[in-house]
Amino acid sequence: MVLNNLPVSGPWGERHLLGLERLSAEQLTTVLDLAEHYDRATLGGTQRLDVLKGVVVANLFFENSTRTRTSFSLAARRLGADTVDFTASSSSLSKGETFIDTALTIEAMGVDMVVCRHRTPGAPHLLARHLKASVLNAGDGTHEHPTQGLLDIYTIRKARGRISGLTVALVGDIRHSRVARSNIHGLVKLGARVIVCGPATLIPSDITQMGVEIAYSLDDILPEVDCVNLLRVQFERQRGAFFPSIPEYANLFGMNGDRIRRGKSDLLVLAPGPINRGVELTPDVADGPHSLILNQVTNGLLVRMACLTLLTQERRRLQGGEA
Amino acid sequence: MVLNNLPVSGPWGERHLLGLERLSAEQLTTVLDLAEHYDRATLGGTQRLDVLKGVVVANLFFENSTRTRTSFSLAARRLGADTVDFTASSSSLSKGETFIDTALTIEAMGVDMVVCRHRTPGAPHLLARHLKASVLNAGDGTHEHPTQGLLDIYTIRKARGRISGLTVALVGDIRHSRVARSNIHGLVKLGARVIVCGPATLIPSDITQMGVEIAYSLDDILPEVDCVNLLRVQFERQRGAFFPSIPEYANLFGMNGDRIRRGKSDLLVLAPGPINRGVELTPDVADGPHSLILNQVTNGLLVRMACLTLLTQERRRLQGGEA
Amino acid sequence: MVLNNLPVSGPWGERHLLGLERLSAEQLTTVLDLAEHYDRATLGGTQRLDVLKGVVVANLFFENSTRTRTSFSLAARRLGADTVDFTASSSSLSKGETFIDTALTIEAMGVDMVVCRHRTPGAPHLLARHLKASVLNAGDGTHEHPTQGLLDIYTIRKARGRISGLTVALVGDIRHSRVARSNIHGLVKLGARVIVCGPATLIPSDITQMGVEIAYSLDDILPEVDCVNLLRVQFERQRGAFFPSIPEYANLFGMNGDRIRRGKSDLLVLAPGPINRGVELTPDVADGPHSLILNQVTNGLLVRMACLTLLTQERRRLQGGEA
Repeated sequence: MVLNNLPVSGPWGERHLLGLERLSAEQLTTVLDLAEHYDRATLGGTQRLDVLKGVVVANLFFENSTRTRTSFSLAARRLGADTVDFTASSSSLSKGETFIDTALTIEAMGVDMVVCRHRTPGAPHLLARHLKASVLNAGDGTHEHPTQGLLDIYTIRKARGRISGLTVALVGDIRHSRVARSNIHGLVKLGARVIVCGPATLIPSDITQMGVEIAYSLDDILPEVDCVNLLRVQFERQRGAFFPSIPEYANLFGMNGDRIRRGKSDLLVLAPGPINRGVELTPDVADGPHSLILNQVTNGLLVRMACLTLLTQERRRLQGGEA
Repeated sequence: MVLNNLPVSGPWGERHLLGLERLSAEQLTTVLDLAEHYDRATLGGTQRLDVLKGVVVANLFFENSTRTRTSFSLAARRLGADTVDFTASSSSLSKGETFIDTALTIEAMGVDMVVCRHRTPGAPHLLARHLKASVLNAGDGTHEHPTQGLLDIYTIRKARGRISGLTVALVGDIRHSRVARSNIHGLVKLGARVIVCGPATLIPSDITQMGVEIAYSLDDILPEVDCVNLLRVQFERQRGAFFPSIPEYANLFGMNGDRIRRGKSDLLVLAPGPINRGVELTPDVADGPHSLILNQVTNGLLVRMACLTLLTQERRRLQGGEA
Repeated sequence: MVLNNLPVSGPWGERHLLGLERLSAEQLTTVLDLAEHYDRATLGGTQRLDVLKGVVVANLFFENSTRTRTSFSLAARRLGADTVDFTASSSSLSKGETFIDTALTIEAMGVDMVVCRHRTPGAPHLLARHLKASVLNAGDGTHEHPTQGLLDIYTIRKARGRISGLTVALVGDIRHSRVARSNIHGLVKLGARVIVCGPATLIPSDITQMGVEIAYSLDDILPEVDCVNLLRVQFERQRGAFFPSIPEYANLFGMNGDRIRRGKSDLLVLAPGPINRGVELTPDVADGPHSLILNQVTNGLLVRMACLTLLTQERRRLQGGEA
């Protein structure tokens, strides 16, 4: 089995990737190390591997997402897997089939892994209880988006060589952000100090139970932070009273040239994107030397390659054990 | 030629798969036997073959169908073929191109096989008269859906080892069902006794000419049948006076635990899906030991692999003959 | 490097394919010769090559086009490349991301070549300034559609063995046609006499600066022309006062049996399609012996294979130079 040759020494043991909350620091490190291995082994992604040859990965997206879906597809194919896409609009759901029946049908077509995005928190967990296939959560409502958390963390680790001891600020709509939640779970376990920062209406007060600090002023914390991760302002979701005006938001929480100058000289700027230029950050910051936005996209493939591999390895181990 | 090594001894000789009406019992058996061979040769579909390497299969769907389209795509790719999708909404049809011109254009791109779904009965037959490519009917209006018929029949044969002598009930909207028509053609030729069962408004009285019996009460025939195939209630089509209320339909023609107990102990329950839980069958039946619903999905790939192979073999034979 | 073995002796040296305006006659001939080589080397497209193995080609289409998009995809895959599709409706553009950010994100996923269609003239040129990936213009507004021009020219050259000295008439809406502009640039450079012919409202008077002649009557020029290329009447765009009625247009500028009889005996009839039967040409002409419409579709793959190859070759040469 080709997978046996992988230089993965760390623990894993998971059949599904549902969230970072349930992963240990050691498991997180296993993923990050394998992603780093793939970075070298594929010469930055330009070479193809055969690690997942014969594996079929299905994207089952009930919310639109070209970026994440394509990243998973390209990651799978770079490892030799085959991919197939299902989208809500074209699926049998419009004919009255249930979510689980749709997934079981896809699985019955010989699919080994299901990448699922759904607006309902816990939807991938529900799938995981019904499917033999491995389930990867690609975003479930406001709950988790584990591969985005992993790619953000991988990007910071690649830039700094470590996570432990760094101070990371997550900026923006913490309340509704699955990206924030996955980042928090991963970063805290790996030893970072995490500050969530945004309008008071968008930060749940009990979030300190997750091991983070709260700040309502970006300027106050700026001198201390090694990395700011600028959550996307989701215009399509924000119609309520949560939100200040866009100019006011940009003024209070957007990264701009002035804030770059007042931050650490080696401040890292992350943004999960798609970015709104002039809102979360100004164009000069987005395109400037502190920005790792496109590195995040590239690293997304590496992290997803690692996750697809580890889950396949575990599934084969379990199947071998059954035999 | 790799295809020469296939253990296909039965007759075939068809360039297109337009319907089961025109196939003989021997030809049907050829497909079923090759599907069975693929089941073993691919270890239940987990291995890839190279039988159709270099072949390009185009899905040309004028009605939405994720399930059938994906099944054909995965079947083609499992044999090494390449696939490409056309859908009505994105096709040149919206720019005024005719159906035939669209198909000829697709063929001119080097496509070898066209899988066609269309709301008009006979549309694939029209294509077959104009194309050199092989045409596979993936459902034409209320006329035929031959691969669905084949997969249903394969599923029964796999469970029972034979078709001849079995009694199969097709339950529901017989009048508008291409699935029923393809099942009837295939099952009758292979020696099954077929009973169509449903509301009187939904069974054309002249259907007995197809060699089937008619029943208006599921309960009456239940003790005699080896297999019930529960046709999907198509809410999106049924708005007329044909139909009783949904609860009444479920009460009269739906499979439930009570009917399971009154049927044969080894009754097979099929449903082409996507199923409406609580309508054609109750959840306990859908998920119970009599249900072969997910087997049907898996077998759909095998049957489609067999059809794609036989049509390619015949096309190459004819091309060799021309050379 | 597999590419070194290609029998390409002509000059190229382009990182992007933005239009035929900037290519020399020698560069155009390099493309046409490689397309001809691929025609033979793939036995008319039935064989697969590995020339672009590991290369990822992204379709980034902001206007709908199944034909062109599929042709690029099949061309890429026939050479062993992998493809991924982005469409405007499903892209992050609907979330406020800019055009360039979308393209940079796609590039960051490891994409080597971006095939772009956009309603704005110059959009691919803008991409080319921002991306390291090669950009292929698949149609930018009314500006250029270089691969359509190349495939039209290839089709004529294949039929006649040369371009120089032939008289080609482009018929229809010259004003809004990117196909006309690319044809004119290519044909004039390769030594053809080009006549643009259509309603006076649809021919810009200064187009003679491109080296073409103007005719307002198809019947007048018919005896002199070796090839008519019938531009598609774009009903979806033409709502203004530019246009005569459809019957009048067909009467004045449509090809029909009568005009075929009055033209040269070996007149070539091209139409970029999708065609409107009864408008640009009558069915008997479309399906008759003078028509090369389906040849154009087939040749489109060959020409695109040639372009993808040459651009990859140049990018690798530049990368090798950097190393």
